[in-house]
Amino acid sequence: MCHVCVMERVKSEMLSRRALFRVGAAGAAAATLGAGLAPRPALAQGHTDVMDMTHLLTEDFPTFFGEQWAHKIPVFNFDEHGLFGNEWRLNEHVGTHMDAPLHFSRDGLSVDELPVRNFVAPLCVIDIRERADADPDTSVTPDDIAAWTAAHGPIPDGACVAMLSGWDAHVRTPKFRNADDEGVMHFPGFHGEAAAMLLETGAASIAVDTLSLDPGPSADIPVHLSWLPANRFGVECMANLAGVPAAGATVIIAPPKLEGGSGGTTRVFTLV
Amino acid sequence: MCHVCVMERVKSEMLSRRALFRVGAAGAAAATLGAGLAPRPALAQGHTDVMDMTHLLTEDFPTFFGEQWAHKIPVFNFDEHGLFGNEWRLNEHVGTHMDAPLHFSRDGLSVDELPVRNFVAPLCVIDIRERADADPDTSVTPDDIAAWTAAHGPIPDGACVAMLSGWDAHVRTPKFRNADDEGVMHFPGFHGEAAAMLLETGAASIAVDTLSLDPGPSADIPVHLSWLPANRFGVECMANLAGVPAAGATVIIAPPKLEGGSGGTTRVFTLV
Repeated sequence: MCHVCVMERVKSEMLSRRALFRVGAAGAAAATLGAGLAPRPALAQGHTDVMDMTHLLTEDFPTFFGEQWAHKIPVFNFDEHGLFGNEWRLNEHVGTHMDAPLHFSRDGLSVDELPVRNFVAPLCVIDIRERADADPDTSVTPDDIAAWTAAHGPIPDGACVAMLSGWDAHVRTPKFRNADDEGVMHFPGFHGEAAAMLLETGAASIAVDTLSLDPGPSADIPVHLSWLPANRFGVECMANLAGVPAAGATVIIAPPKLEGGSGGTTRVFTLV
Repeated sequence: MCHVCVMERVKSEMLSRRALFRVGAAGAAAATLGAGLAPRPALAQGHTDVMDMTHLLTEDFPTFFGEQWAHKIPVFNFDEHGLFGNEWRLNEHVGTHMDAPLHFSRDGLSVDELPVRNFVAPLCVIDIRERADADPDTSVTPDDIAAWTAAHGPIPDGACVAMLSGWDAHVRTPKFRNADDEGVMHFPGFHGEAAAMLLETGAASIAVDTLSLDPGPSADIPVHLSWLPANRFGVECMANLAGVPAAGATVIIAPPKLEGGSGGTTRVFTLV
């Protein structure tokens, strides 16, 4: 689906405030998340190492709409100025980045308004690499979440639930976008029903190692249109999820504090 | 001193590779820091809350050279596109931000090359608020560092040593730059001798709640020209240092992973 089609579809499906109220339980959970007052297990207990979960940001970093969204402009150089520095023109959705609620909901929280408590979170990694290898259009399903909770217990309050599809390995190749002849992209994401299931938990964020929370071919992007309007946030293009345990690590999600931003190029670490 | 003067001075004082070798012990310590192999106490033990140490980034955020260094350009809006998003033009040194070694040393590490291990660090807060209230040109001295270590023990390996001058409270007023009639700014920073003392420790970074690691009126900026070429890094315009303990907190310094960047607008948290 081309980006014009995505925009048209999004406009027609945009959740109204009224639809938001129908979210019900999720709305109540989101209120708690927003207040940041929910009890939380002690964070980052006894971790001894830091892993970088962030892709290097280059001017040619692949983007959802295929346009160049990172431009580096030299400003200071040693010969002329005796110091060195650049300016960057960055779309809020380039590189490893955050989708704040405001990205897809008029009354959603902007990136600077999100409670920082949810930026240091228990990390739950759902591994679908085997299916993704065989079928790029696969997704994280409710069964995958049930399997994770059977093995590791309930999704912790404030958690970041991440899809490990192995797609970060493709970031410097055309397979990262994996567009077919009609421009439809093919990469994994969360299934809408999985997002609905997670909205019943206290998870604060979801993360993917691909370009979108929804799978590439998704026309109605149900994850963007349910998860973000519930004032939860997402992280796209996360790297190195294969290097952290399925449960027990603490992820640090550090977006820029851009006034009124819909997201932003984000640094992500994991304490392991 | 105007920014042209700063640049001229910087060019004339720029440390050569040869001068770098003269740093001696600091060079050896920097090599250890770069390798990230030094023993380190367990990070982030038993912390239960997250504090935001980052200023809100607005287009009018004050800058060292007085120019506008943050521009927000609308890209997507709900009425036209069904979603919302912006582009930002950001100098690498606007807002709460990092100075990477490359900012002032041709062969220094760029922001994307710094070892992430030093981005999650023991935080040592040196409180000079009382002096700064009386004299904006004051600085963190070797005596201040000696007083801190007498009270709290040696500077931990990998530490971030931060100046708390109280200057973050002035960020939305002219007092943040505090320029006099000749354009010379007046705010606190580290004294060159304090930086030299810290270069003998395993500290990985220094931080200030003002616009510069060096005090505002400093013409020869000895801190920039000794600390950064030793492959240590700095954080400028940090917020909320008054809200964290003098010792025992863990700071998280999360710069964007900009290819070949001299720094970048950075999110900073503290686990307390």
